[in-house]
Amino acid sequence: MTTTDPALVSDHPAYVHGYSDTEAQRLGDQADTLAELLHAGTAYPPGSRVLEAGCGVGAQTVHLLATSPGMLLTSADISAESLAQAQARVAAQAPGAEVAWHHGDLHELPFPDDAFDHVFLCFVLEHLADPAAGLAALRRVLRPGGTITVIEGDHGSAFFHPETPAARATVDHLVRLQADAGGDALLGRRLHPLLTDAGFTDVTVRPRTVYADAARPALVEGFTRRTFVAMVEAVRADALTAGLTTPAAFDRGIGDLRRTAEPGGTFHYTFFKAVAVNH
Amino acid sequence: MTTTDPALVSDHPAYVHGYSDTEAQRLGDQADTLAELLHAGTAYPPGSRVLEAGCGVGAQTVHLLATSPGMLLTSADISAESLAQAQARVAAQAPGAEVAWHHGDLHELPFPDDAFDHVFLCFVLEHLADPAAGLAALRRVLRPGGTITVIEGDHGSAFFHPETPAARATVDHLVRLQADAGGDALLGRRLHPLLTDAGFTDVTVRPRTVYADAARPALVEGFTRRTFVAMVEAVRADALTAGLTTPAAFDRGIGDLRRTAEPGGTFHYTFFKAVAVNH
Repeated sequence: MTTTDPALVSDHPAYVHGYSDTEAQRLGDQADTLAELLHAGTAYPPGSRVLEAGCGVGAQTVHLLATSPGMLLTSADISAESLAQAQARVAAQAPGAEVAWHHGDLHELPFPDDAFDHVFLCFVLEHLADPAAGLAALRRVLRPGGTITVIEGDHGSAFFHPETPAARATVDHLVRLQADAGGDALLGRRLHPLLTDAGFTDVTVRPRTVYADAARPALVEGFTRRTFVAMVEAVRADALTAGLTTPAAFDRGIGDLRRTAEPGGTFHYTFFKAVAVNH
Repeated sequence: MTTTDPALVSDHPAYVHGYSDTEAQRLGDQADTLAELLHAGTAYPPGSRVLEAGCGVGAQTVHLLATSPGMLLTSADISAESLAQAQARVAAQAPGAEVAWHHGDLHELPFPDDAFDHVFLCFVLEHLADPAAGLAALRRVLRPGGTITVIEGDHGSAFFHPETPAARATVDHLVRLQADAGGDALLGRRLHPLLTDAGFTDVTVRPRTVYADAARPALVEGFTRRTFVAMVEAVRADALTAGLTTPAAFDRGIGDLRRTAEPGGTFHYTFFKAVAVNH
């Protein structure tokens, strides 16, 4: 469970970020700020069958539709609530776009073998208890010669100025909570071995780095404040419930993190984007 | 003092990396592996007066000479021993290149105000007790409208797979030893505020990221093994003398770091490159 507020309890309990409207907004802000950074290089040919596994609230779906207008997209998610939000987002931001929505677990997709030419997943493996099993299930529905594209963050890449023990502790709490939920907030660094061990070939992983300082105010606002600090702040209740911190210590850490978005502050984060082939 | 071996004691005691021949080789390997990453975008017009502050053993000097063949280069260092190695390196790798060598402290350069059109420094500020004072001294000899280019690492950007507490501890020892020597191994993230506070304008800082995995064996060898792990390994004696660790613990950490260069391992590091104008 990712929140102590019963009104926000989700239908899929082990998702560290929760399912609140605020969180959906954050995921949208994050996706819009990072769209060029993360989606550059990804464009599927018209007519190609693409599976977006773990589409969540559709934050990446709308960018996929924008960059690959002619593809045949299937977007799947384990949360019916998120899927409904994704449908609403696509209806609003990409009216007329056709998406086949699938509610279900990516480990048990009902599609036949080789059903897709390409598979895309973003910020999904980090939440799986067994990412290797997830990749194996996705590989089954990917035709030989098809590609898989995986984007993940790695909270170990987060460093900033000024850095304080309190700020670092709040980030560590998020990593810990995600581990407690069965995930791995440090997964980005493992993409190459995970894909290789899953039997994919031609595995190419590249860092996609966000660096924000006073010279880039839009990035400070869109990434440092509205994406990263907001993400850490969102686990406050869970961190307190888990006994990881106190209200005063957590709030001091968030305050320190916010200072990295003030003049004189800097913030660094690395995403990893992997592309591999199913042979 | 950076080594306990009297034969390796340098003429400038507070340099965390020491002055051994092995270290000079490492700095050369590092510079050659990273030359394109770090020097891309830096090219000075023929006839321009360029000061390389803190040239050390000339690892970057030869790359500066290669990318800006017509400039008028002055290379300065506080260590006479390093300067001699730099001269030998340039004689060997860039025969015919003319460099005005200066032995002295960058805080007390004997050059008149506005003597240079451009200033370049790489892996220097991280070793200064007061980088702001160093920048002020360099700004004095830079003409109005001239540029300063600063390249620094940040050991807080180092993360890897597999990651172990022992491996992380050895990196932390290096950070600690550099702090004890008056430096800051985490300086990269501070470049923007440092240059801004020193009065430079149009400050632009960009991350230059090294990411090495099994798909990039040359980078694994050139950076992970021969640059980063070698750099950490080189402080073994100092870490033991300072009482930070035991031989067994340090060697276990180095062994774990080396595993990041084996198949299945990955390594990430971010350098920062700043360019700013003297107004």
